[in-house]
Amino acid sequence: MVYLTRAEHFNAAHKLANPNWSKEKNEEVFGVCANENWHGHNYEIFVTVKGHPDPETGFLFDVKKLSMLIKKHVIDQLDHKNLNVDVPFMQGQMCSTENLVIAIWKQLQPHIPTEVQLHCIKLYETPRIYVEYFG
Amino acid sequence: MVYLTRAEHFNAAHKLANPNWSKEKNEEVFGVCANENWHGHNYEIFVTVKGHPDPETGFLFDVKKLSMLIKKHVIDQLDHKNLNVDVPFMQGQMCSTENLVIAIWKQLQPHIPTEVQLHCIKLYETPRIYVEYFG
Amino acid sequence: MVYLTRAEHFNAAHKLANPNWSKEKNEEVFGVCANENWHGHNYEIFVTVKGHPDPETGFLFDVKKLSMLIKKHVIDQLDHKNLNVDVPFMQGQMCSTENLVIAIWKQLQPHIPTEVQLHCIKLYETPRIYVEYFG
Amino acid sequence: MVYLTRAEHFNAAHKLANPNWSKEKNEEVFGVCANENWHGHNYEIFVTVKGHPDPETGFLFDVKKLSMLIKKHVIDQLDHKNLNVDVPFMQGQMCSTENLVIAIWKQLQPHIPTEVQLHCIKLYETPRIYVEYFG
Amino acid sequence: MVYLTRAEHFNAAHKLANPNWSKEKNEEVFGVCANENWHGHNYEIFVTVKGHPDPETGFLFDVKKLSMLIKKHVIDQLDHKNLNVDVPFMQGQMCSTENLVIAIWKQLQPHIPTEVQLHCIKLYETPRIYVEYFG
Amino acid sequence: MVYLTRAEHFNAAHKLANPNWSKEKNEEVFGVCANENWHGHNYEIFVTVKGHPDPETGFLFDVKKLSMLIKKHVIDQLDHKNLNVDVPFMQGQMCSTENLVIAIWKQLQPHIPTEVQLHCIKLYETPRIYVEYFG
Repeated sequence: MVYLTRAEHFNAAHKLANPNWSKEKNEEVFGVCANENWHGHNYEIFVTVKGHPDPETGFLFDVKKLSMLIKKHVIDQLDHKNLNVDVPFMQGQMCSTENLVIAIWKQLQPHIPTEVQLHCIKLYETPRIYVEYFG
Repeated sequence: MVYLTRAEHFNAAHKLANPNWSKEKNEEVFGVCANENWHGHNYEIFVTVKGHPDPETGFLFDVKKLSMLIKKHVIDQLDHKNLNVDVPFMQGQMCSTENLVIAIWKQLQPHIPTEVQLHCIKLYETPRIYVEYFG
Repeated sequence: MVYLTRAEHFNAAHKLANPNWSKEKNEEVFGVCANENWHGHNYEIFVTVKGHPDPETGFLFDVKKLSMLIKKHVIDQLDHKNLNVDVPFMQGQMCSTENLVIAIWKQLQPHIPTEVQLHCIKLYETPRIYVEYFG
Repeated sequence: MVYLTRAEHFNAAHKLANPNWSKEKNEEVFGVCANENWHGHNYEIFVTVKGHPDPETGFLFDVKKLSMLIKKHVIDQLDHKNLNVDVPFMQGQMCSTENLVIAIWKQLQPHIPTEVQLHCIKLYETPRIYVEYFG
Repeated sequence: MVYLTRAEHFNAAHKLANPNWSKEKNEEVFGVCANENWHGHNYEIFVTVKGHPDPETGFLFDVKKLSMLIKKHVIDQLDHKNLNVDVPFMQGQMCSTENLVIAIWKQLQPHIPTEVQLHCIKLYETPRIYVEYFG
Repeated sequence: MVYLTRAEHFNAAHKLANPNWSKEKNEEVFGVCANENWHGHNYEIFVTVKGHPDPETGFLFDVKKLSMLIKKHVIDQLDHKNLNVDVPFMQGQMCSTENLVIAIWKQLQPHIPTEVQLHCIKLYETPRIYVEYFG
C-alpha cells in the first residue's frame, strides 16, 4: 500500500459565532474570531489517497487528475468565498476547521475512483494550526 | 549599518471592489477578489529597521520592543478584522496589499525610536504574493 | 474522530554526555554534541489531540486553550533554559530529543481535559531531525 | 515506542514513458512528464525509524549514523543521476515517485540495524506532491 | 515606489558541461553536475516589479496578469524541459542558474507594461542556492 | 552584475549578559536571554556574493567552493559551540545576532576570491528574527 498526497490552497472569509447565542456569549467563547464583520485565512489542504501503483503507469492515481478533482469539488466551492454565507455544504453548522475538514471529506470522497481510497484530509487554518480527518 | 527584521502575522478579511464602479466592472477587473461577501488571508509582515548596534547591549534595537511596537500599532489594528470595514486608516482607499503596506508604514514609522530608522515593510498576502515598501 | 494540532516553539541549550563515561568516550559517541560548554537549538513542537467536535462550538478543543496549556506546562519550563541544568523533569537522564519528547508527554498529558485525548507530540530539534511519541 | 525521522535530499532527472507504448499514448497519459529529453526534480526524502531509546545514550538510533546509511544506500545511488538510465534498481519499471519510494525502501531496509525498525519513507517530488510507504 | 513580487515554479533537466572541454575536464570542474545523462531541479522563480499603485484599483500591477505573463514567457518555455536541449534561448551558453536568470530577464522584460518596471528576478535552483538579477 | 546566495546552518549556545552589569540589570535588559546557564539556537546563514558569470563555466563562483569556504571559516568555528566561551573572534563583545553577523563578515571576507565581491550576510536567529550586514 502506497500513500499519495497532493496539496492545494484556497483563501476564504469566515467567523465563529453560534447564531443561537448572544453577541456577548459569542465574544466570550470565540474572542476575536467572533468579529461580526468577518476575518479570513489562506487555507492549505493536503489530500491523501492510498492503494497500489498500476504497473503500466507506475501511478497509484494520476496526480493531475487528483488535483483536478480537488479543484472541482473543493477549491471551486471555497476559494475567495465566505464560508458562513456562500458555501451550501457549510450551512447550519459552525465554520470551524474541524467541521470544514469533515464537510470537505463528504464532498470529495464520492468522486474518488474506486481503484484508490481516500485516506486523509489535512487542513491548515494557519501555519501553526491544522486539523486531520480520516473518515 | 546593520539591518534587523522581525516577522509577525495577522488574519483578516477584505474584498477588492471600487465603490464608484458597477458590480459588473468590479467583477471584470477584480474577478473572485470582488466577492461581495468577502474573502480573507493569513498575512505575514516583516518589519526591517537599520542602524548601528549599541556596544553595551550588542542590540541595534531590542527585538522584543520592536515586536511590541508592531503588535500595538499594526497587529492589534488588523488582526481578525475586516480591512474594508473595521480599520480606520484604510477608509477611503482600496484594500490592496500595495495600499495596505503603505498605510502600515505610516502607522508604524512615527513610533520607531530615533536611534534606528524604519527601512522596509514586506507584506505577504499569500505565500506566493508579497509587496515591499521602503518609505 | 478528528485530530487537531497546534505548533509552538522554544529555544534551549543542551549537551549530550553521559556523566558515567569519560570525556573521551562521550566525544567518541556523541561527537560535537558532547561539547562541555553546550550548544543549542530552536525546537519546534507540534501537539496533536483527538476527539469529536462539539456541535455548539464546532471545536474539538479551543486551540487558544490548547496553546495556553502547552505554554504553561511545556514552553515555560523549557524556553531559554539549559535542558541539562535548569529543567527538573529532565534530571537524571540524557537530554536527547527522544527522551525530551517522552518527558514532555508526561508533563502535558495530565492537563489535557478528558473530552479529548492527547494523540502525538512531534518535536523538531532541527528542520531536518524530528521525533514523534504517541504515548 | 518512539519515532525518529531524518530528512535528506537529492536532485535527479527522469521521464514518465512506458517503453511498450507509442509516443502518442505516452503523451496522452503522461503529458509534459513524457518529454523524451527528460525533466527533473529536487527530491526531499524523510526516513522514519521506530524503537525504544537506549538509556545510556538517550538515542533510539544515532541520527548521524542514520544519515550516513541514507547517504550510502540512497543518496549516492540517486543524486545527480538520471533515474531511468543510471539507477540499476529502477531498471524495468516506471520511474514514478510511487515506484521510487518502494525501491528506496528495498535498498535501505536491509541495512537498518535490528535494534530499530524502518517505519516509513516519505518522498517529496515537488513541495506539493509526496508519497509515503510503510513497507 | 512599491515593489510587488509573484512566485512561480518549473521543473527541468540540465547538465553543466562545456562542449569545448574533454569529459575529464568537465567532471573535474563540474563534478556530478556534469553527468552526461542529465539531472534536474524544481526551480522556484520570484519576479519583482516596481512602480506606483493605481488609485482606482489599488494595484501596482494586477498580480493575475503578472502571473500570466510569467507563465507565457517563462514557465511554458522551461517547465518539464531539458534546458540544454529544448530551450532556444539557452542555446550556445552554459545552463547555469546565473545564465538562466539573465536569459529569463531578457525573455520577460519586453513584455512588462510600461506603467511598471521589472526590478528583480530571483531564481532558486535548490532551497539552499539562489541567484538574483536586477538587469 | 549577478548575485549568488548559498545557505548553511549551525547550532550554538549563547547568552546575552553584559559582564560589567549586575545580574539584576542584565535580567532587566535581556530578560530570559540572560539565563546564566545559557540557551541556544539553530542559526541559518545566507551568504551572497556578486560579480559577472564566467562565460566558460557559466558560474559567478562555484557554489561548492563557496560552501566549502563558509564551512571552513564560519561553520567550523561556530557549529555546536558556545558563542560566548568557545569562539575567539566573539571574545570581548556581546554575542547578539547583530555583532555575530559583523564578526562573520570579518572572518569570511578576506577569503573570498577577488573575482567576486562579498555582498551580504543574512543570519536567522529564529525563523522570525534575522539580521543583514552589507559590509
